[in-house]
Amino acid sequence: MGIPVTIENPKPEAEAGLNDLVALVADGMARVNTTILSRTGSEVAMIPEVANHLIASGGKRLRPILTLACAQLCGYADAEGRDGDVKLAASVEFMHTATLLHDDVVDESDMRRGRVAARIKWGNEASVLVGDFLLGQAFRMMVEVGSLRALDILSAAATVIAEGEVMQLTNAKNLETDEAAYLAVIRGKTAELFAAACEVGPVLAGRGEAEQAAARAYGMGLGIAFQLIDDVLDYGGTSAELGKNVGDDFREGKITLPIVLAHRRGTAEERAFWQRTLQRGEIEDGDLETALAILRRHGALEETMARAEGYGAEARAALDAFPDGPVKAALLGAVEFCVARAH
Amino acid sequence: MGIPVTIENPKPEAEAGLNDLVALVADGMARVNTTILSRTGSEVAMIPEVANHLIASGGKRLRPILTLACAQLCGYADAEGRDGDVKLAASVEFMHTATLLHDDVVDESDMRRGRVAARIKWGNEASVLVGDFLLGQAFRMMVEVGSLRALDILSAAATVIAEGEVMQLTNAKNLETDEAAYLAVIRGKTAELFAAACEVGPVLAGRGEAEQAAARAYGMGLGIAFQLIDDVLDYGGTSAELGKNVGDDFREGKITLPIVLAHRRGTAEERAFWQRTLQRGEIEDGDLETALAILRRHGALEETMARAEGYGAEARAALDAFPDGPVKAALLGAVEFCVARAH
Repeated sequence: MGIPVTIENPKPEAEAGLNDLVALVADGMARVNTTILSRTGSEVAMIPEVANHLIASGGKRLRPILTLACAQLCGYADAEGRDGDVKLAASVEFMHTATLLHDDVVDESDMRRGRVAARIKWGNEASVLVGDFLLGQAFRMMVEVGSLRALDILSAAATVIAEGEVMQLTNAKNLETDEAAYLAVIRGKTAELFAAACEVGPVLAGRGEAEQAAARAYGMGLGIAFQLIDDVLDYGGTSAELGKNVGDDFREGKITLPIVLAHRRGTAEERAFWQRTLQRGEIEDGDLETALAILRRHGALEETMARAEGYGAEARAALDAFPDGPVKAALLGAVEFCVARAH
Repeated sequence: MGIPVTIENPKPEAEAGLNDLVALVADGMARVNTTILSRTGSEVAMIPEVANHLIASGGKRLRPILTLACAQLCGYADAEGRDGDVKLAASVEFMHTATLLHDDVVDESDMRRGRVAARIKWGNEASVLVGDFLLGQAFRMMVEVGSLRALDILSAAATVIAEGEVMQLTNAKNLETDEAAYLAVIRGKTAELFAAACEVGPVLAGRGEAEQAAARAYGMGLGIAFQLIDDVLDYGGTSAELGKNVGDDFREGKITLPIVLAHRRGTAEERAFWQRTLQRGEIEDGDLETALAILRRHGALEETMARAEGYGAEARAALDAFPDGPVKAALLGAVEFCVARAH
């Protein structure tokens, strides 16, 4: 559905923003990747097959990168060679992967990261069960690290993520969803794991509550901004870049912020259009183009990006709690990356 | 499908076997039930709705009963009022409930415990996500208890259960499944949680490895016996008693032990019958009656029950590690209950 739109692929400088962070945690991420591969192992052949189909398909591994970086920011030293940061980072990525596998079943998605979704290749059953396996492995690794505080943060995150997903389900196709309800959904389904991924960094390093709260606030702001930009990209990115087709949210009747904003300001005719397409799911040829035109008319994508800038600013401000240095600079760059990729 | 069969409802004396155990842990189970209710709470209304639909539908709560009983057997005293046994018991039940919710999606079941399955009422999405929520809540409660050893046992169990379920998926409709492969499936999908539920009892009570291993062996034997009898009942119980219809496994093409045994001994004609019905899923009126006749001809149900008796004996023997007393006697009675309900 290659629709020409004004929003382009990430600018090189936005990518560069993330590259600093990637370079700083490169050693740790190599160990995270080895850990991920070894922990998807099972005598039940279908498990590594399904898990690695998704894991090998890439993704930026932003969440485990954040765990390593926040541990590093707080001076975590792996004195006993227990690989605490690596194991928690891998746990975070497994939690994310499990969520994606379950999401595909929930959304009845056919594609994920530009590849056929696991549920299409192996069935819903395999996606559900391999997700459960990865969640179990995530908790096993956390237990190995032995920090009850980190376990507390990440197990709480698991419930909050599920709550966010159920809220999204409840709001689906419901044009009465307002901005607050939408934000509650993305705080749960996306930002909570970013926040938890960051918070366990200072926990591992033995830092106090103030730094834990600051790292958490950074992750929360970043995660909300990330999801808002994702929602914008769903109406404007290119398929090759995103690994999913433009208009997926539209076709699934997802009420994201651009829709909330455009609907609120919409004419009676426009509201009737949203009701037919998103609420009743009666989508015809040319409807996506119409949707994009309505979104543009109300500046809904630009305003969503402005909201993302705001949350990005909150994330940056949270880092004031930490002394300047290369890790903090790279974490600031990550905010830039998340926000700028839609410009 | 009220087919008259020789196997009847549980005998009164079998029920009595479990009643002793139920009476011994009644106080704790009252607290477990309160905990379960409070921990399914969420501001997202659909979560308690879906969770309680399944939880309120009953079930014997055998697994949390085992956790309380094994803690009691080892003299666990809740000196600090931390309700460690109650929280771990509720965690175990949540893990079980999550598995049931996910199983319904995997099996495409319409019924569960005599009620419409949650996935029919709220959709596959809700079943997957509420299962995830309960799994998260289970881990949160374990973290509150603060025993890394118990966390280790239960998180490992979560992965083993998922492995068992995936194995079952791989074996589905495959008549080449042999007895060893079948046993590997039920060790994972059923017995592992029984074993873990028992093992955390001595762990809580601060007992050593020998007693942990003994409690685990008891749960493992009991769990295998329990599943074998379940598989027999699927070809012989009554719908009212089981909460599911006789012949569900048959219609789903599940290769359970009765089938493995009958197939192994089958004539060419019988094997062709199993291939048509279980492998190709071409089931016609009267096929269930034919299946039952073939199973009877080879004594497959009786032999499966004999195997269950064997595992029950292993469970009883494992209890030799503990001194005689009312709790041990009640745990022996539970073996009787599990095995005798198919007679």
